[in-house]
Amino acid sequence: MNDVKLKSLEICLTPALFPTFDDSGKTVILVDILRATSTICAALHYGVKKIIPVASVDEARAYKEKGFLVAGERDGKVLDFADFGNSPYNFMNEKVIGKTIAYTTTNGTKAISMATGCGELLIGSYLNHRVLADYLIKGDQDVIIFCSGWKSKFNLEDTLFAGALAETLMESKTFSNNCDSTHAAIDLWSLAKSDLLSYINKAAHRERLRKLGLDDILEYCHTFDAAPVLPVYVDNAIIAK
Amino acid sequence: MNDVKLKSLEICLTPALFPTFDDSGKTVILVDILRATSTICAALHYGVKKIIPVASVDEARAYKEKGFLVAGERDGKVLDFADFGNSPYNFMNEKVIGKTIAYTTTNGTKAISMATGCGELLIGSYLNHRVLADYLIKGDQDVIIFCSGWKSKFNLEDTLFAGALAETLMESKTFSNNCDSTHAAIDLWSLAKSDLLSYINKAAHRERLRKLGLDDILEYCHTFDAAPVLPVYVDNAIIAK
Repeated sequence: MNDVKLKSLEICLTPALFPTFDDSGKTVILVDILRATSTICAALHYGVKKIIPVASVDEARAYKEKGFLVAGERDGKVLDFADFGNSPYNFMNEKVIGKTIAYTTTNGTKAISMATGCGELLIGSYLNHRVLADYLIKGDQDVIIFCSGWKSKFNLEDTLFAGALAETLMESKTFSNNCDSTHAAIDLWSLAKSDLLSYINKAAHRERLRKLGLDDILEYCHTFDAAPVLPVYVDNAIIAK
Repeated sequence: MNDVKLKSLEICLTPALFPTFDDSGKTVILVDILRATSTICAALHYGVKKIIPVASVDEARAYKEKGFLVAGERDGKVLDFADFGNSPYNFMNEKVIGKTIAYTTTNGTKAISMATGCGELLIGSYLNHRVLADYLIKGDQDVIIFCSGWKSKFNLEDTLFAGALAETLMESKTFSNNCDSTHAAIDLWSLAKSDLLSYINKAAHRERLRKLGLDDILEYCHTFDAAPVLPVYVDNAIIAK
């Protein structure tokens, strides 16, 4: 008989549902595949020292006026006063090494501000899937995978990654799953994984990015383990753990 | 070239997301497979004249005191003052023919009270799938399929039916789908439909009903077209259209 207590695993499909979860003491994994959490992983992997997530455009502007580098977008478009947009490619250059960057996005940074009361807040994407999964499997905390969605609505790209991560966690036999959202995300991932980029063509946000000429990042943002860092939210900033 | 304007089709996965949808002028299909909307279809099919949905237990008690028959449950359990619970089987007898019944449930009737500002509010379940689909396909209104969920959370059983109905509507070529939730629901339905009752074993609420000894209704609630009525919400009550 196995007396090991399994950790609970839940998936929150959009920020509008987050208030229905009890996140106290739990590890929350924030997911915004297109593009905030992919970009955060890339930025820390390529040498950014610290990212300060800010929820509003006004806050981002205030950081700019204080001399910080600022990255930010709304509805996919770069803010006019920002130094960088919301593409992982923006951070693959020497200019950012060792820098602190204030960062605001349509969905991702707002979701961060909702989850700051949990036990530990980590950033997840395909880019850091393995390092993240290993950390969660070795740890003893219950886990909520928190999809940023699009303006509070459900989206496919975050749900698919949540399913991919949940599948890996369930395969470790250290988690239990009594969450309908987790079943659904794992099953959608099982349908999509053999040809992920074709499946993502269905996603409404993929079309939004295409219209903005921003879909050059699609393949990179769906690449496993290209930026193996473990971003954690500590003292109002995100750093590599 | 086809100039026919396609109607829009969206799926709202839980009541917590309903405020993110614009329902004005649209036809909303309320779905609570286990068990409110299945029960409403059965009740009207077996001769109930009118169902008055009430959101709170206190309101239901007030109707009882006024002499109405009352059906109601909370967390799956029959309210102690109610004449009926929330099983479709409760309404398959002569006692209810021609009667008006006040009805409250954990999720379904609350969701009804959120959607009363839409163009037309209909009740959907497997039991009236074909008659409902035919009506929506012939009509010219945009459609939102509104899943009641469980205490504001996502659930599998409502999402699967939403996927089944969405698949039928999309096959008619009279609807367009730019909604990630609709893609997800149709894909989950495609996975589940060949063995629906086995798939439903994953659902958290199926386990809740089993513990309460209430899962005798599972098969009936997943039977296509067993109660071919078109329940519509008019003047604070649900009647057969």
